[in-house]
Amino acid sequence: MNTKQKTAEELKISFEEYLFEKAFEGFPDILLEPAMQIIKTKAKRLRPVLLMSASEAFGTPSNEALSAAAAIEIYHNFTLVHDDIIDKADLRRNVKTVHHKFGINKAILTGDAMLMQAYNQLSLSRVHEKLLFVFKKTAMEVIEGEQFDVDFEDMEEVSLQEYMKMIRLKTSVLLAAALQMGSIIGGASETDQEKIYQFGVNLGLAFQIKDDYLDTFGDQNTFGKKIGGDILQNKKTYLLCRAMEKVEDKEKIRSIFNEIDHSTKISRMINLFNRLNISNDTEKEMEMYYRYALDFLESVSINKEQKAGLSNLAEEIYLRSF
Amino acid sequence: MNTKQKTAEELKISFEEYLFEKAFEGFPDILLEPAMQIIKTKAKRLRPVLLMSASEAFGTPSNEALSAAAAIEIYHNFTLVHDDIIDKADLRRNVKTVHHKFGINKAILTGDAMLMQAYNQLSLSRVHEKLLFVFKKTAMEVIEGEQFDVDFEDMEEVSLQEYMKMIRLKTSVLLAAALQMGSIIGGASETDQEKIYQFGVNLGLAFQIKDDYLDTFGDQNTFGKKIGGDILQNKKTYLLCRAMEKVEDKEKIRSIFNEIDHSTKISRMINLFNRLNISNDTEKEMEMYYRYALDFLESVSINKEQKAGLSNLAEEIYLRSF
Repeated sequence: MNTKQKTAEELKISFEEYLFEKAFEGFPDILLEPAMQIIKTKAKRLRPVLLMSASEAFGTPSNEALSAAAAIEIYHNFTLVHDDIIDKADLRRNVKTVHHKFGINKAILTGDAMLMQAYNQLSLSRVHEKLLFVFKKTAMEVIEGEQFDVDFEDMEEVSLQEYMKMIRLKTSVLLAAALQMGSIIGGASETDQEKIYQFGVNLGLAFQIKDDYLDTFGDQNTFGKKIGGDILQNKKTYLLCRAMEKVEDKEKIRSIFNEIDHSTKISRMINLFNRLNISNDTEKEMEMYYRYALDFLESVSINKEQKAGLSNLAEEIYLRSF
Repeated sequence: MNTKQKTAEELKISFEEYLFEKAFEGFPDILLEPAMQIIKTKAKRLRPVLLMSASEAFGTPSNEALSAAAAIEIYHNFTLVHDDIIDKADLRRNVKTVHHKFGINKAILTGDAMLMQAYNQLSLSRVHEKLLFVFKKTAMEVIEGEQFDVDFEDMEEVSLQEYMKMIRLKTSVLLAAALQMGSIIGGASETDQEKIYQFGVNLGLAFQIKDDYLDTFGDQNTFGKKIGGDILQNKKTYLLCRAMEKVEDKEKIRSIFNEIDHSTKISRMINLFNRLNISNDTEKEMEMYYRYALDFLESVSINKEQKAGLSNLAEEIYLRSF
């Protein structure tokens, strides 16, 4: 390890070059335009950057991790294409969703082809078999998490335990798998792989809880989205599940669900959250998971310098306020 | 090769035992019921039986081919789940389609999980890498074929060349891949693999053209479905594409497209087909492809006895009148 690790920005640039130029070789021409509609949208490329960074942390140049990173990113985008159909979302980061622009039928088939392309990219890796072992378990878990999330919409109440299980599956395991796959490419021991995986799971949980927190308690100017969107949709967030467990009379929450006036609805729910001290509970919880994440990273048997890329990324992911 | 080859029925029984008992290990509980809705529907299991039969033809017991056969069958059923959403089909073989029974959202995710399960089953095979090479190309081609088929609906005219390309992708290559994968498990040479693949492609084309033929010219009693369904839907079949190429004035066909009365529409189209000799052209064409298929099988370097299972299957597939 004499070579200096690449920065997150450098990793992202080399990754996107591969993603746009190489990663769709063999993809059907007829579905390339709808696939590019989402793939070329401005994005942080969190998962591939984590994967490549983990590979570098264990001493393997990140260009050896490009096809695995593409597999993770294409898989992630496949889930977004199908999720947007399910959520009837017209826009994603201010860009038209695939089904909104190309119709539901084409979006279903485009997602399908992207899922296959993810496996195809994975198969190009030198350590394909080992990566597949992680990837196949994770890919299935994410879909399971999505189905839980869909089911939550029709449930009046979701326990905190159910909520945590859902975000673990829907969000955290893919971050964790990206990191583990990077560490496998880097040649990590199984013990280190497991620690890196747990670093990712806990970072993902902290990230998702913070995302819920910011949607209600964030600063409108830095958060980017309108505050209170989750409240308006009666979305089962960490805050709401927590409030459901603490409130003395659940009818109070149900009556807010039925409030028609938007700003009244938001302020009534925030008042209730404040009375129940939900903001403070949530901050503690997300900080706890972030701390767990850093502890797991700390315990990995590489030196501080080698960890620098990953700990910087963790900080960037967790401390973001957008 | 001293052991007697299993019959198609025996192969189907041992395959279904594996499919129902083993092939869904690791599948999310939450999506198992919708997956079983289609998987447990009575079916011929054509693709897995072809795969296992090819393995036996080259001397490898079919139980070594079970996971690859499951991969092909689960993949095929995934395409049906998503296709039925696209076609808005409520029934398949008189059983409710997955989305009709469980809703579109669950059907999308069930299909996604089945596609992943197909890759997972494939990865259990001893010769996984070689099989994946065939499978990944084919899986993508089938989706491409489906997109062509979707596009055909909005096209006024489809050339015979475009039609043949579509059915090759949508139907034939999966039969061919099943056969090639079976031959790989059986240890076939690359030359024999290619011949077996071509046997499958041509058999698939013959099968699909015959399917179009029977929908219009079949015997109502033995065909099972109502005669003329394709005509009522203005479906781009071999017959229609052929007629479009032969008719002197295409307006004649367009006016039949707009005919409202069902039985008048069917009889007007059949009259036109008869005047253009379409029935005879189509019979010649499907027999030509069937002959090609048998010629390719004939040229494979195994003896007649070893080929018996495959040639019996080919006959059964092609000579069926249902």
